[in-house]
Amino acid sequence: MSVLDEPLRFGRDAAPARVTLVGAGPGDPELLTLKAARVLARATLVLHDQLVSDEVLALLPAHAERIDVGKRCGAHAMSQRQICALMVELARAGRPLVRLKGGDPFIFGRGGEECEALAAAGVPFEVVPGITAAQGAAAALHMPLTHRDHADAVIYVTGHRRGDAAALNLDWPRLARPHQTVVVYMGLASLGPLCASLMAHGLAPDTPAATVENATRPSQRVLVADLASLPARAAALGVQPPALVVIGGVARLPALLRVADGAHAALA
Amino acid sequence: MSVLDEPLRFGRDAAPARVTLVGAGPGDPELLTLKAARVLARATLVLHDQLVSDEVLALLPAHAERIDVGKRCGAHAMSQRQICALMVELARAGRPLVRLKGGDPFIFGRGGEECEALAAAGVPFEVVPGITAAQGAAAALHMPLTHRDHADAVIYVTGHRRGDAAALNLDWPRLARPHQTVVVYMGLASLGPLCASLMAHGLAPDTPAATVENATRPSQRVLVADLASLPARAAALGVQPPALVVIGGVARLPALLRVADGAHAALA
Repeated sequence: MSVLDEPLRFGRDAAPARVTLVGAGPGDPELLTLKAARVLARATLVLHDQLVSDEVLALLPAHAERIDVGKRCGAHAMSQRQICALMVELARAGRPLVRLKGGDPFIFGRGGEECEALAAAGVPFEVVPGITAAQGAAAALHMPLTHRDHADAVIYVTGHRRGDAAALNLDWPRLARPHQTVVVYMGLASLGPLCASLMAHGLAPDTPAATVENATRPSQRVLVADLASLPARAAALGVQPPALVVIGGVARLPALLRVADGAHAALA
Repeated sequence: MSVLDEPLRFGRDAAPARVTLVGAGPGDPELLTLKAARVLARATLVLHDQLVSDEVLALLPAHAERIDVGKRCGAHAMSQRQICALMVELARAGRPLVRLKGGDPFIFGRGGEECEALAAAGVPFEVVPGITAAQGAAAALHMPLTHRDHADAVIYVTGHRRGDAAALNLDWPRLARPHQTVVVYMGLASLGPLCASLMAHGLAPDTPAATVENATRPSQRVLVADLASLPARAAALGVQPPALVVIGGVARLPALLRVADGAHAALA
């Protein structure tokens, strides 16, 4: 029986329990923070996304109840509003809970909306940051996100937009600038329009561009190409989500900094 | 006696030792990754920057030799070139070493240059990412870096420029865009010109803007204002480096999401 089926015993006089939003990092459980690992080790109830790796979930105590809010709950995945409502309801019922999110809760994790819902409901909460996928990929591939010769800034954007997942309507003048690293989260589905728009707005066709699948996981795979050729090469290689798209001079470095330590065995 | 004084015993036939670049995170030692903590616990020789907190350094074994390469070494701080040369020399002499950097080695940490020097010298290396200051500040202050209502992108830039620390010559059209979060590392020294230039390039004077001193450390202090008033208010409050400057709608949220848990006791 899950807490979702149980009638919640709502102690009217009791203060709500605490919610801890935790960043699960990019996949490799070794990249959890010490604080996140400590919170997970004593968790009793965890709401997690689909992006959280099995290796991280394996760190939870056997008796901890898990709710996969990214997965179908009945026929549909839970909406963000439903997730917020459930968190508030559980906390008010006195159930301390961990909200576990892939990467960092505050970088495309919608943690801000959850914090707002908790604050509005008077539920105390805490946030534990996590290594975001871009950092995990950078470290694993020896691909700095900033570099004096290639990028004096790094920008994270997402390929998905509110209420309009199909259209890619990004701020192109901001992205098509020289000397920066652009990391597109969830950019694979719109890789063709993404690369075409960046070129249409002024980036050279030979601007280095890469995809990184399953960053930091054993199945990690990186494809280094350029803006002009990346979509076709990614399609030919069968690159699958979750994947990052990295654009800018640093995207060329995994190929250059390849060292004989096996880290780049999967370099395509 | 330090390794800096010792003649290095260079075994010509031996393979060079491994260098591990480690992100020390923003200050709170609980925000180290499990992997970083494991690497530090067995370190024998550590080259670290000044930004690495004492609490993190306290995790090193007592017998580990430490070299503060950010501090004066004789009369001058070591140059980046000298640091790279020292790393190569020590690795070639068979000394496995940890290169410990504040935040993430690949976000304004010049880790890329060090990897290039190591790769060129045939020294094997590995990179362990770290929570960057922006993420530490975000979690501590309940200030999401992206948010559907406020920012569909986050951009990290630095207030210091190569060979020209005094002038602030940033890519203003890129930064003065709506609906994004701009985090300026080391932006305090040029806070006045920074805010003025962003307004001159089109950002509204009432765009939320904040400074975060000593993110995640006990001495953390945040000042929430707007572009027009931030420089004067930061001067009045005596904000000191290291500090981040955060610009965009999310910078207003620490004041809104203030909860009764003491996290914002220092909110100015």
